[in-house]
Amino acid sequence: MVKQLEGPILPFLRLDATVALPKFRQVQDQLRMAILKGHLRAGTRLPASRILAEELGLSRQTLVRVLDNLKAEGYLEARQGAGTFVSAALPRQPAKPLSRPTRHDVADRAPPRLSRIGDLSCRMSADIGQMEDRPFLPNRPALDRFPFAVWRKCWNAVTRGGKAVAMGYGDVAGELVLRQRIAEYLALHRRDPCDPDQIVITPGGHAAFTLSALALADPGDGIWFEDPGPVTTSNLFRTLGLRLCPADVDADGMDVEAAMARYPDAHLAFVMPSRHHPLGITLSLPRRLALLEWARASDAWIIEDDYDSEFRYDGAPLPSMRSIDSDDRVIYAGSFSKALYPGIRVGFLVLPPQLVGTFRTLSGLIHRSVPVETQLALAEFIGGGHFASHLRRMRGLYAERREAFMLAGRDALAGLARIDCSESGLNALAWLEGGRQDQASHRAVLDAGLQCYPLSDYTIATPQPAALILGYAGVPADRMRPLLFRLADAIARSQGRIGRSGG
Amino acid sequence: MVKQLEGPILPFLRLDATVALPKFRQVQDQLRMAILKGHLRAGTRLPASRILAEELGLSRQTLVRVLDNLKAEGYLEARQGAGTFVSAALPRQPAKPLSRPTRHDVADRAPPRLSRIGDLSCRMSADIGQMEDRPFLPNRPALDRFPFAVWRKCWNAVTRGGKAVAMGYGDVAGELVLRQRIAEYLALHRRDPCDPDQIVITPGGHAAFTLSALALADPGDGIWFEDPGPVTTSNLFRTLGLRLCPADVDADGMDVEAAMARYPDAHLAFVMPSRHHPLGITLSLPRRLALLEWARASDAWIIEDDYDSEFRYDGAPLPSMRSIDSDDRVIYAGSFSKALYPGIRVGFLVLPPQLVGTFRTLSGLIHRSVPVETQLALAEFIGGGHFASHLRRMRGLYAERREAFMLAGRDALAGLARIDCSESGLNALAWLEGGRQDQASHRAVLDAGLQCYPLSDYTIATPQPAALILGYAGVPADRMRPLLFRLADAIARSQGRIGRSGG
Repeated sequence: MVKQLEGPILPFLRLDATVALPKFRQVQDQLRMAILKGHLRAGTRLPASRILAEELGLSRQTLVRVLDNLKAEGYLEARQGAGTFVSAALPRQPAKPLSRPTRHDVADRAPPRLSRIGDLSCRMSADIGQMEDRPFLPNRPALDRFPFAVWRKCWNAVTRGGKAVAMGYGDVAGELVLRQRIAEYLALHRRDPCDPDQIVITPGGHAAFTLSALALADPGDGIWFEDPGPVTTSNLFRTLGLRLCPADVDADGMDVEAAMARYPDAHLAFVMPSRHHPLGITLSLPRRLALLEWARASDAWIIEDDYDSEFRYDGAPLPSMRSIDSDDRVIYAGSFSKALYPGIRVGFLVLPPQLVGTFRTLSGLIHRSVPVETQLALAEFIGGGHFASHLRRMRGLYAERREAFMLAGRDALAGLARIDCSESGLNALAWLEGGRQDQASHRAVLDAGLQCYPLSDYTIATPQPAALILGYAGVPADRMRPLLFRLADAIARSQGRIGRSGG
Repeated sequence: MVKQLEGPILPFLRLDATVALPKFRQVQDQLRMAILKGHLRAGTRLPASRILAEELGLSRQTLVRVLDNLKAEGYLEARQGAGTFVSAALPRQPAKPLSRPTRHDVADRAPPRLSRIGDLSCRMSADIGQMEDRPFLPNRPALDRFPFAVWRKCWNAVTRGGKAVAMGYGDVAGELVLRQRIAEYLALHRRDPCDPDQIVITPGGHAAFTLSALALADPGDGIWFEDPGPVTTSNLFRTLGLRLCPADVDADGMDVEAAMARYPDAHLAFVMPSRHHPLGITLSLPRRLALLEWARASDAWIIEDDYDSEFRYDGAPLPSMRSIDSDDRVIYAGSFSKALYPGIRVGFLVLPPQLVGTFRTLSGLIHRSVPVETQLALAEFIGGGHFASHLRRMRGLYAERREAFMLAGRDALAGLARIDCSESGLNALAWLEGGRQDQASHRAVLDAGLQCYPLSDYTIATPQPAALILGYAGVPADRMRPLLFRLADAIARSQGRIGRSGG
């Protein structure tokens, strides 16, 4: 039954003297491939090693090493006194076409078999944050003013000596010391004390939303979502199979009464009460109370995205919804993306006590937390007072930039757009005169070397008047006027008007 | 219709001179609470500010500040010429019982309304990594030998000046430079070239599994899972609603033929071919080929957890399954938890090309990536050759520790347990003589100030013979003997035998 290889073995191999890979590695890799492809069949006896070495141009010693490696991998086997064989245990026939498909013939194939979530995500975009960093990029903090030297000092202080505590798996909910510092910060600056055990640290804000959605809603369950609103967040909920229930936004924020009438059976409400993005509206107190009452009465949950609450220019930030939530219905979500910088990728949740156990476990299972050293450095940064003083400085800086933006914007954009700087956040709106052209204006702005988002990109269901979202926090005050005139010029061109110059 | 507050306002407030909070903050917080609780009803007129200031013991100026803040928050409103009122827009009746529940009466309530995933996770444990760091803790690398000074140098090099590139949101799939370094490492050391675009960086290994499960399997879909196997991983899949299909493990690894017979319709196979945890077995080549053929024929996916492939003590690591996957069925998962240290929380996937788009988007939506500076530091660490040389050093060190463990273990545990050090990884098994007592022995080992995991904790469905999983990689060779005798003593006690001493 033993099949002796007829003729030389070399025809099955393609050794190449011009590649960098050593010859023995080429021989080893190609012998393996010849077996996998069925050129050398299971049970086939190889020629004697002396002959084989000669044929392949290897020393006998090197050949033995190659054969030993392939034996260890299970491709070859030695039979006492009889020589070396292709393992008899391998399939007789190669399973399938022989050539490995190239990485570029994907388009020719049938679409891969995915889950419902996989299918949905194919149709979504997660492109936020991929935008080029140019003037007026929305949601961009003043990165050059971040005290990176202090941040590095904190990181170096907590990693000195590589303490084992920073190297282990750490707490599934995040390091206690960071949770303590966050709780202290919230108590002092958001007037909202909580127990550090109610906090779960997540790898960024989106991970916090994912955790909440998975724990609280099944596919098909409804979630109220402000329309317009951040589409990557609505895409996340839609991808997880939730039924998106767009809720209109007026001057008082989310229209809670209308949402109650249209979607009374929703399980979740996602809301940005401190500062709606992108409209910049604060949810009014009666609406907050109505929302809390709806959640209580219908056994629903509120995810409070405390968006941009740190940056308010006309007095103290408004209290969070969580702080007036007497029925433990609010899951409070925060992140350090804008207060520090987006690349830090740290978010957190403050949970009602009855959800703490579930969220801790689920977070530990699905993603654990962020690098322990980043957590400890952040705890040091907050504990040393650097976080609070950075925020204080940025509030001053952004107020100044906002003022400069408004003043110059009114001049530059007169007749083209109405500037709308809410009293908080990092962004403004420019409501375009004369119709729904924000996509064209957006393209023109990009062509002019600037950045913005068209409001229509934030539309969930109800079309909005045309507007551009502009970030002013990253632009120095003294550059505001010329850049805004460049912006105005681009908008004018996009609307078929004559470009204007000035500044 | 205007309702004038009758009598003084103070009865509704409980000012406390002994607390640190300034009096004006107490007044402000308590006025807000009195309104929320319905003690001060919507539409009620407050006394004149002069009288109120006097009554509350505040200066007129401070009182005006309090009232202004509460107006900004929407609790109060001024009516021209008529004074200050509790906002008429607030609900007439307080929504619900007045006192905020304490954080500790959770147990008295009905269980919270959760999703199916939330419900499931309540019954799961994510406790891995919470174990105290004591000798023989499984999966523990030699943290004291990690070149932390070099790691800090890399981190400091990439963060110098806080370059904006490290501070932005970054690529949803992880920084290109890190994906390039990982691809180079895999090509060189795992003989498995891939395009950096096939790589997605995740916040740790579990996040990589979560991403794969969500993208590829719906609730109810089957997943082959080696039995015994890591229970936190099986808990993750069960929590996401997958149907766990326990596959027996024999000396050749996962019994693929039996799994095909029992669960032919599964969508996924999760497998640790390089080194099964905790049994230390390598999946044989015929089994690998059979598994690949099953996936091809049944349009299923294989998640290859390339567990501990870095640490093999008898020659080069075996090639990955991905490297012989000619039908693009394998999702390859790696992490740096054991090669570097667990606290780093960086994992990654290498994807078949037809899945890249889906995984990129889904990863961007559900958790994005890890801190950009950690990614850049890791790229620098790999690119500078520190990763490869650290692994080389650790392979030598662990081989030495493994040898010391085997030698001393045979003496110390003779008659109590059979030591089983596979040829790779960081852990050994001690198969206990005489029955299924690993839980009792485990407790005794903890009582002796040591660590281990009982094999029964890894049981998915089929009970295993009693064994303890012991980590030797974190224990210096010269401490091995006395610690193993202490271990033996604990095991002997737990089995009702006389303690032994020695070493």
